Parts: sequence; structure tokens; C-alpha cells
Amino acid sequence: MIENKEREEISHNGKNALIQRLSEFFKLDNSSSICGVECNASVFNHADKHTVFASQLYLEHIHFDLTYFPIKHLGYKLMAATMTDILAMNGIPSQVRLNLGVSNRFSVDALEEFSAGASICCKKHNIDLTGLDVTSSAVGFAVSVSMVGTVEPDKLVKQEGAAENELICVSGDFGAAYGGLILLERAKKVFQANSESQPDFAGYDYLLERQLKPEPRLEIIQELKKADILPTSMINVKDGLASALIHICDASKKGCLIFEEKLPIDTLTFNTLKDFKIVATMVALNGGEDYELLFTVKQSDYDKVKNLEGVSVIGYITAESSGKFLISNDNKQIALTAQEYYGEKE
Amino acid sequence: MIENKEREEISHNGKNALIQRLSEFFKLDNSSSICGVECNASVFNHADKHTVFASQLYLEHIHFDLTYFPIKHLGYKLMAATMTDILAMNGIPSQVRLNLGVSNRFSVDALEEFSAGASICCKKHNIDLTGLDVTSSAVGFAVSVSMVGTVEPDKLVKQEGAAENELICVSGDFGAAYGGLILLERAKKVFQANSESQPDFAGYDYLLERQLKPEPRLEIIQELKKADILPTSMINVKDGLASALIHICDASKKGCLIFEEKLPIDTLTFNTLKDFKIVATMVALNGGEDYELLFTVKQSDYDKVKNLEGVSVIGYITAESSGKFLISNDNKQIALTAQEYYGEKE
Repeated sequence: MIENKEREEISHNGKNALIQRLSEFFKLDNSSSICGVECNASVFNHADKHTVFASQLYLEHIHFDLTYFPIKHLGYKLMAATMTDILAMNGIPSQVRLNLGVSNRFSVDALEEFSAGASICCKKHNIDLTGLDVTSSAVGFAVSVSMVGTVEPDKLVKQEGAAENELICVSGDFGAAYGGLILLERAKKVFQANSESQPDFAGYDYLLERQLKPEPRLEIIQELKKADILPTSMINVKDGLASALIHICDASKKGCLIFEEKLPIDTLTFNTLKDFKIVATMVALNGGEDYELLFTVKQSDYDKVKNLEGVSVIGYITAESSGKFLISNDNKQIALTAQEYYGEKE
Repeated sequence: MIENKEREEISHNGKNALIQRLSEFFKLDNSSSICGVECNASVFNHADKHTVFASQLYLEHIHFDLTYFPIKHLGYKLMAATMTDILAMNGIPSQVRLNLGVSNRFSVDALEEFSAGASICCKKHNIDLTGLDVTSSAVGFAVSVSMVGTVEPDKLVKQEGAAENELICVSGDFGAAYGGLILLERAKKVFQANSESQPDFAGYDYLLERQLKPEPRLEIIQELKKADILPTSMINVKDGLASALIHICDASKKGCLIFEEKLPIDTLTFNTLKDFKIVATMVALNGGEDYELLFTVKQSDYDKVKNLEGVSVIGYITAESSGKFLISNDNKQIALTAQEYYGEKE
């Protein structure tokens, strides 16, 4: 993917020419966008709305592995992943800036592929790319995504608003992206041992898609609005359900009870993980990269929420002193814990 | 600086605890800041003003060398450098987000030093840090700075507004930061050859300060406003005067004529570069890291602009067909060219 027969070196182009060329994948569409890539800084005007402001830094060898991850999909995925930070505040994304760090391992072609993938996500979700910069990197590919969106002031949702007895809801299903990652990592190892081997991913489409091209849940934010449901708290699920739910509970100074039988796990995900001798529930709780939304609603909203497509109620908020627990299918009470990974070796 | 006797490993802390600790160097002060580090994304409201939105990615081994650059100064400098993108649109910076990528070479102490330096710049210039995230890096330190500020809609200044016969103005002086870089690089080489050696920087304070702790020209933006001068175009000078001026001319479809004798170069800078057998004018044109502002004003603003402290008029805008030239002290006409560096080897 990155290697190319007629490889065009990044150094063949001036910086401005390169940025100009990559910018052609994007065009401004939103009326709130005032100044784009050609300016010192981009400019927008969100008028009487609040601006929701997110930024993420994604680094090769930490957040993605280009030996099996197509760089075009990466462009899409990093946009989608950052979008969920805006969605989690009940915001609608509108402008984005991209700062790329690239070593000379990368060709212009690879950067165009990346831009093409990013632009598909932008177009699909009506986001204007208003800034694009490329700089050198000593090692690998570094991507910084800075994104803004809007929310009406009285519709802003934070992590801290959950109250006792409120319902805990989630969008989509969990564990599939992690399942896809296992499949890709396994294929990489097989390939490293025997470069003649061809991976057979037949039948695993859903898991691979969830890993390679996650869909941000913009439609959930729109459906909640349409159904006149204002969540009392919300968060995006990046590092598993457990971590997200603990954040909501800690910010709101509450406890929670969720039920294993209520966790939405796709059948293919469940069976694939089982083949690998992995318990799907553990992956749903701690797997990561689902990019779904977790939110709480008042009990009185139950009738409205139960009719929303792609939304599941998985439990309820309790008093802080009651702790944070999962009730397993065999009726055991299991304390929720978040997994965190730090300190890569240089 | 980074090594510490009682070194605290980043992995000793959970991610949330670490972010909480680093956040303590900052507090929200601006009334437009609505939600800070504790939220999924930060939130602000700039009401009827335009928002100016900048982002920069800074990578170790490319943009900075921690073998001689104190990490506390780095925190200050990267904030200051990003600020100039906002200033160059005639904007006043107000909110910032920081995303750090760190390898296990770094201790908690080093990150606290960095945060302390960044917070000094934020406090001095009334900028709220509203987002802070830390992730792992495979190699070195990566810093993404995303910043927003405000500008009144009718006061927005772009690169493209320069007209023929308008005056070309610059803030401050040029080449000192590059001079400081040469001094530091030289001391590093001496130290590598003999680790007993101690660098002697006596008398070079100004050059080192300009390299290690550049001051963003917020006061120039404020003075221009006070003097009722609205620049017709503006840009920040990061990669030398020549590159900045070429950007202004190309965006405005104009030419320019600047005069070597008018270029503001500090005496210590001039003499130090001369000792190194480097022509100061070449460094002013192509050195970089000055973080000054270059702007054009109408001829009718000459009387106002000549009284502004720290502003020099260095030439004027010409027709596009006249080209872009410097008139040297010996009256030669030299074409301006921009230097660009790309494609580091991995």
C-alpha cells in the first residue's frame, strides 16, 4: 500500500504544493466556515451556539499498525474516532484541522490515500476540513486531529449529570472492533512466519469493518433530539464499557448496576471470540475501539428510549455507596474495573 | 533534566490521575470557557465573534532537541509558537488543548515541568487550557497544540489583502532565535566530545532567550487596535522573513520590494553571527523561529505606524509582475526565495 512502483517522494514537492494537493480532497460546505486551509489559522462562527472543541493525537506503532491497516481506512477511522468526542457532548461536528507528521518512508501517494479516506468521512458527516499541515517526523506517522462542533447551550450534555435510578443506555454493540483486531494481528503473525500465506477473512466482514471503518453515531444524537430525549450524562466508549461507565459514575458521584444479559454483543463477535477462547463479555467491558455512545436518561424517558433503533438499556444508576457492579448471567456480582495501558518502551 | 534521582514512572499512575495532576498547573479564567479538562471535549462560546482556530504538531528530533532544550521552556515555547497563528489573523487567543505523546523515557516529573512552562505562557496571555490528554509514544515526545481565539468579524485579517504601494511592516527583530540555536548546537557538540566541558553562554542572553522562550506579539495586536490600524494582510514569521513575505505576495497576487538596510537585526545577533562567519541578513530572511508578525498597512497609516514601538517598515508592495526582491546595502536587487525542508530519513 505504501510502497509504490512509481513512487513520488514527498521531498519532490514544496510543502505548499503538497498541502495544496492534499487539500483538493476537501472543500468547504458549511456556512459557519469562514476561512480554510489557505489561512494562518482557520476561522468559523458558531453564532449563538456553544462550540464543542476536541483534539486527539494518534501515533503509529501505538494506535495503529500500517503493516495491515490500509492507510485510506486510517484516514476515515481517525476522523470518525475524533467525531465521537464531539457527539458525546451532544454536539454536531462541523470543522476539523489535520496536522500530519511523516517520515520519508511515506510517499505522496500514501498521503493522498490517507486524505481520500479522511475526506469520505468528512463528506458523509458534513464536516469541513479547514486546516491541513504536514511536517517531518523522525519515525513513523503521527496524526493530530482537532475538531469543533456546535451544541445549543441548553442541550449540552456532560459526564457528570447522572442521577440515581436513571437508565444506562448504549448505542450499537460491543467487542466487534477488538475481535477484528485479533483477526488482523493473527494474520500478521501468520504472514511473518510464511510470506506466501494469504489471510482468509471470509465470513468475518462485520468484525473487520468495525475495526477498520468504525461509524460514528451521529444518527443517535439526531434520533435522541427527534425523540425529545436529553441524556442526563454521556460519554463515548473508546476503551471498553467498564472504563466509560466508571467515568460517568465518578463524574456524577454515583454507582451503577449493569446486567451481562443486557450487553449488546453481536452473534458473530460472540462466536469468533469463543473460537479464540475469549469471553465476549470481558471484551465488551474492556476491549476498546467500539466508538459507541453510553448515556443515561431519566426513568420517565424509558418508553421513548426503548423504541430507538440501535439503543439498548443495560442497567441503572445507583447510589455512590452501592459501588459499580455487573450482574453476571449466573447471577454473580462482579466489580467493574477499568484497564489502562501506559509507558511504552523506547 | 529528564532523569531524576527519585524518578516517578508514568506507569505508576493511572491515566486519569496523571491528567488530573498535570491539570492542576492550569485553571479556567475566561468567561467564554464553559467546560474544561473534565469533559469529553472542551466547550466555549465566543458569542457574536468569529473563532480563530489553529493547531500545530511538534515532534521531538524534528522540532526540538531535549538534550539541550529545558522541557519547561519547551512548554512555554510551543504555546507561544501556536499563539502566533491566532495573532496573525488579528485574533486574541483564549482557549487551548494539549495532547501529549510520551515514551517511557519520560518521568512524571518531566511532564510536570512541561506543564508548568506551558501554564506560565497561558497565564501571562490569559489563555485557558481546556483539554489535556496523555498517550503513549513509541519514540520520543510528541506535542499537539490546538488553540482557539476570537476576532471581531470586521477585524479579521488574512494573508491575501495586500495592495500595491502598501507598506510592509514587521514586529521585533530577526535572526536572534537562529543565533541562539547555533550557540546551543555548538555547545552540544563540545559536550559530546568532552563531557567535562561546561558551556559558556555569558553575554549571549538575548539570543538564548529568543530561542528558548520566544514572546508572542500579543501586544502588537493590541497596539494596532489602539492606534486604529487594521492591517490589510498579516502572517506570522516562523521560517524567516522571505518565506512569510512570499506567502503574503502569492496570496495577494502582488510583488514586493524590501530593503536590507531596513531589516531590524539586533546588534548582538549581527556580531555573533559575524563571528560564526554567517551573514545576518541571510539568517533574517531564512533563519526561522522568530515568531514575529509581518503585516501590510495602507500608505495613509504611515504616520500612525511609525510611532508604534517595536514595529519597523521594511519596504512596500509592488505589482505581481515586478517580482519579489530585496535591495541590498550595496544596491543590488536580489530575488527572494523560500527555503523548505522535508523528508527526514527514518
